[in-house]
Amino acid sequence: MKIAFIGLGNMGAPMARHLQDAGHELRAWTRSAERRAELRGAGLNVVDELAAAAAGAEAAISMLADDAAEFAVSEGDGGLLRHLPRAAVRVSMSTIGVDASRRLAGLHAAHGQGYVAAPVFGRPAAAAARALWIAAAGDDGALARVRPLLETLGRGLSLPGGPAETAHALKLGANALGAIITEGLGEVFAFGAKAGVAPAAFLELLDQAMLQAGFVGNYARMIVAGGTDSRGGFPLRLALKDVGLALDAAVGLRAPLPLAAAVRDRMLRAVATGRGGHDLPALARLAFEDAGLDGRP
Amino acid sequence: MKIAFIGLGNMGAPMARHLQDAGHELRAWTRSAERRAELRGAGLNVVDELAAAAAGAEAAISMLADDAAEFAVSEGDGGLLRHLPRAAVRVSMSTIGVDASRRLAGLHAAHGQGYVAAPVFGRPAAAAARALWIAAAGDDGALARVRPLLETLGRGLSLPGGPAETAHALKLGANALGAIITEGLGEVFAFGAKAGVAPAAFLELLDQAMLQAGFVGNYARMIVAGGTDSRGGFPLRLALKDVGLALDAAVGLRAPLPLAAAVRDRMLRAVATGRGGHDLPALARLAFEDAGLDGRP
Amino acid sequence: MKIAFIGLGNMGAPMARHLQDAGHELRAWTRSAERRAELRGAGLNVVDELAAAAAGAEAAISMLADDAAEFAVSEGDGGLLRHLPRAAVRVSMSTIGVDASRRLAGLHAAHGQGYVAAPVFGRPAAAAARALWIAAAGDDGALARVRPLLETLGRGLSLPGGPAETAHALKLGANALGAIITEGLGEVFAFGAKAGVAPAAFLELLDQAMLQAGFVGNYARMIVAGGTDSRGGFPLRLALKDVGLALDAAVGLRAPLPLAAAVRDRMLRAVATGRGGHDLPALARLAFEDAGLDGRP
Amino acid sequence: MKIAFIGLGNMGAPMARHLQDAGHELRAWTRSAERRAELRGAGLNVVDELAAAAAGAEAAISMLADDAAEFAVSEGDGGLLRHLPRAAVRVSMSTIGVDASRRLAGLHAAHGQGYVAAPVFGRPAAAAARALWIAAAGDDGALARVRPLLETLGRGLSLPGGPAETAHALKLGANALGAIITEGLGEVFAFGAKAGVAPAAFLELLDQAMLQAGFVGNYARMIVAGGTDSRGGFPLRLALKDVGLALDAAVGLRAPLPLAAAVRDRMLRAVATGRGGHDLPALARLAFEDAGLDGRP
Repeated sequence: MKIAFIGLGNMGAPMARHLQDAGHELRAWTRSAERRAELRGAGLNVVDELAAAAAGAEAAISMLADDAAEFAVSEGDGGLLRHLPRAAVRVSMSTIGVDASRRLAGLHAAHGQGYVAAPVFGRPAAAAARALWIAAAGDDGALARVRPLLETLGRGLSLPGGPAETAHALKLGANALGAIITEGLGEVFAFGAKAGVAPAAFLELLDQAMLQAGFVGNYARMIVAGGTDSRGGFPLRLALKDVGLALDAAVGLRAPLPLAAAVRDRMLRAVATGRGGHDLPALARLAFEDAGLDGRP
Repeated sequence: MKIAFIGLGNMGAPMARHLQDAGHELRAWTRSAERRAELRGAGLNVVDELAAAAAGAEAAISMLADDAAEFAVSEGDGGLLRHLPRAAVRVSMSTIGVDASRRLAGLHAAHGQGYVAAPVFGRPAAAAARALWIAAAGDDGALARVRPLLETLGRGLSLPGGPAETAHALKLGANALGAIITEGLGEVFAFGAKAGVAPAAFLELLDQAMLQAGFVGNYARMIVAGGTDSRGGFPLRLALKDVGLALDAAVGLRAPLPLAAAVRDRMLRAVATGRGGHDLPALARLAFEDAGLDGRP
Repeated sequence: MKIAFIGLGNMGAPMARHLQDAGHELRAWTRSAERRAELRGAGLNVVDELAAAAAGAEAAISMLADDAAEFAVSEGDGGLLRHLPRAAVRVSMSTIGVDASRRLAGLHAAHGQGYVAAPVFGRPAAAAARALWIAAAGDDGALARVRPLLETLGRGLSLPGGPAETAHALKLGANALGAIITEGLGEVFAFGAKAGVAPAAFLELLDQAMLQAGFVGNYARMIVAGGTDSRGGFPLRLALKDVGLALDAAVGLRAPLPLAAAVRDRMLRAVATGRGGHDLPALARLAFEDAGLDGRP
Repeated sequence: MKIAFIGLGNMGAPMARHLQDAGHELRAWTRSAERRAELRGAGLNVVDELAAAAAGAEAAISMLADDAAEFAVSEGDGGLLRHLPRAAVRVSMSTIGVDASRRLAGLHAAHGQGYVAAPVFGRPAAAAARALWIAAAGDDGALARVRPLLETLGRGLSLPGGPAETAHALKLGANALGAIITEGLGEVFAFGAKAGVAPAAFLELLDQAMLQAGFVGNYARMIVAGGTDSRGGFPLRLALKDVGLALDAAVGLRAPLPLAAAVRDRMLRAVATGRGGHDLPALARLAFEDAGLDGRP
């Protein structure tokens, strides 16, 4: 397949390489002339003009830093909108905003081109190892055409359905969760350190006690199941007590736990509004209610 | 071994049963006469007086709801402090406060008794399946004596060292992390639902893209490693952008992400204080600094 | 009136002095012998034993740092409970916890003594200037007897009614508000500074534009009025937009606004749940709902 | 003076009226034909085309809902940029973003027109009563020319200096503070209500005890003064204790205080990093540090 690959940073370069290695007719471009020279030296088929990459391509994949970079390669005299053939498919694998993704879809549609949003999960090492996971959405026909390319780039694919920007919404939600978890880990490691336990030892405990037991997935499944019955479970009023004890200890140890404090207030709200006997996943119901949904995941 | 087991709720009852089944000479007690009758009917060796359970025991294990319940069974005329033999070991497996655990240690020491803090990780189903994980700390001699009991009750043991209450501190920190993650999951599922994706579909994506890839453990290990080099990684300034896009989408979708908003401000602080090029785990450095530590892992 | 005054710190010392100057028969005590000597040298009638201060007193006023100090002077062989005459009134003017205040009330009642909670608003300069404001609650008879003393100590008195600890609850709520406002000021001053405006200049603007116009009181009155009609007002959906613009600017300026970020999510929730056309005080309805009240202040 | 006035909502209509009543040659325009007819019927000089309002004007004042509305009246064939004379001054009194304000300044400069940012403080009733406060910034010459108009519209003017968008930054910061305070009031009123005190009674106390005593301004001045000496003051470690007691009471009363919880963690951080003896305004230092400033307001 004739592919334009736009953006050759830590993520894009190994991805472009995999496509070339898989036998596709690849023309790659990135903004930095220095980087183009470096990658050309390493054997990647790099061209010096974005328009030259786009001309005649059946698919154009972009892997860029932000919304501005996506529009910079799309609009203007030398951009993808003008130079991609009609019926070609633009694939945005960058992490961009939901509005930006929707606007790109509209612009390509206005030029008779397809658009697929296909953000990736994984860091540069995963890109190099073809271990990325990809969430892809867009017009069915366009998606079907580029799907083999996406399968070349990663270990698997989720297809949430809906308009293209849905895939970017999920990517952003997942990244938000990742940031929350990273911050939470940092807070409790600091708390543990003040209690006299080195982060490595605390991690070993967390790993054995919670992560290897599939803690995160288990709670996620309980939320999805949406049950409120806590028989045999862990009622919110006890969870409220436990987080309260953690916060008391945090004060005593002089080790702030700001996310835990925020969650405690949500637990308190759940208990104050009659959900003290529900299981911990009832927390999710508050989030659904706050979003104006009926409170039931 | 002669064991007093105190507290026979959803967690305590199966734990007591495992000890009895393992051949120990168990006398179990719980506050509710009704519950005592029910469990006695099911074959557990239940006695009607706490003092009778304690008399002559080599170890007394408590699995109770809160600090107040721990002190209620410890102090007073009929309590463990008075009725346990000298040299017996009290094991508190309840999730209690750090101060409460330290006070219990002191009280037992004053009565010539040992004290081990051994809170458990796992829900009632795990207790029933002997799949609990246990963090235990206390005086070395006392800990050595009750360690076989703990091994009977779960699938493994972490020994963080330090005074007994350290184990309770870790349990509380871990529970705080669990609550943070559960809340984060609820928020992003609500966000996904407003973007048109059912929680079950979003979970499938999270599971494949992040959880099965060991996301949480990987980030935890990066924090512990404490590196700030983001070459080949994911610099905070990009993570700040991504969470900002998630929050923009949250506003557009009318789906609040309060924890993500709190984390965004911490990322912003990290970038404002010169850490925009560090990798995401640099967030943990802020937590360490805020706790008055030197900022390293 | 024969008065025992307990606690002679920055607040207590000038308060005790006012009572002595008003002609009351005062015996004052504080824990530090050095401080007792210093104040005796300055003419205050200081005694060396707490019991001596309490003996024969009609009222005992305490002004101490925390719950522990209140119980330390109340309980034990030399404490107020034992040495105050029956029918004397204990007045706790310290800022203590609601539970602690309730427990003190019970202890004094059990000794046949009255108890009034009377926490103060104002800093040491206000105490010296008799410019404190006092919130007082307790048994009507006890309150009536000590009311003239309270009037001597401050510029006025609020009587919220209810059991004694109600006064401490209000004091704690008010202090929480004060801390929130102080933090909010700090955040926006830092934000202003990054925008190029010195805190003094920003303060002048805030003072003229908002404070002198009675901003805080006006919004408080709107909340109390509980109206949701925003005709002629400021609908939440616009307030959401404004705070969103502030947060966008905060990102651009690299100046975190964590409290504003938390409030934005609450506004977003209000809009997502159908209150976008309500006036800003509709935020208070969320707080009422979260507390399990019917949402109407 | 010949004035174009754009945007005749709850705020704009009374403002335009004041300018017309002051003798200026006003041509007003707003998007809604119905609203134009209504206001024309009430005697305001309303024109039906934006271009007609702009033609020949010496100043064009806009009072619109958001960034999009500002650009909608500025750009395009019928917009202010094209139809305002060179040397005319555009005055944006809307609450818009800092970036939007900067971009408007650039666009007008490119058309040889002046630009002043002059957002207002006050609600529609204040606009009607000429009781608005205005923060204005921009090129000195442009500002001097429109200053009499601004003085006609309000009770006073702050001139923070700096580029035009500085005025919008301050307005946004002030609105963020207003939202924080409103949320804080709502939370403590709900807390008070659960403690048995009606919001009106709590407000009376707050008004007497804190607001009439100039609490907010006093703390703001302490922050500006930047002192850390707490002799005669209120050390953070005590403030931490008080907010902790408030949060304990909040749990007991089942009345969440999420902002107070967030502030408690910042106090805890201040104490953990060696500032427990500083006065409460030391909280502001954290905000300055987090913004990458040297920590001193």
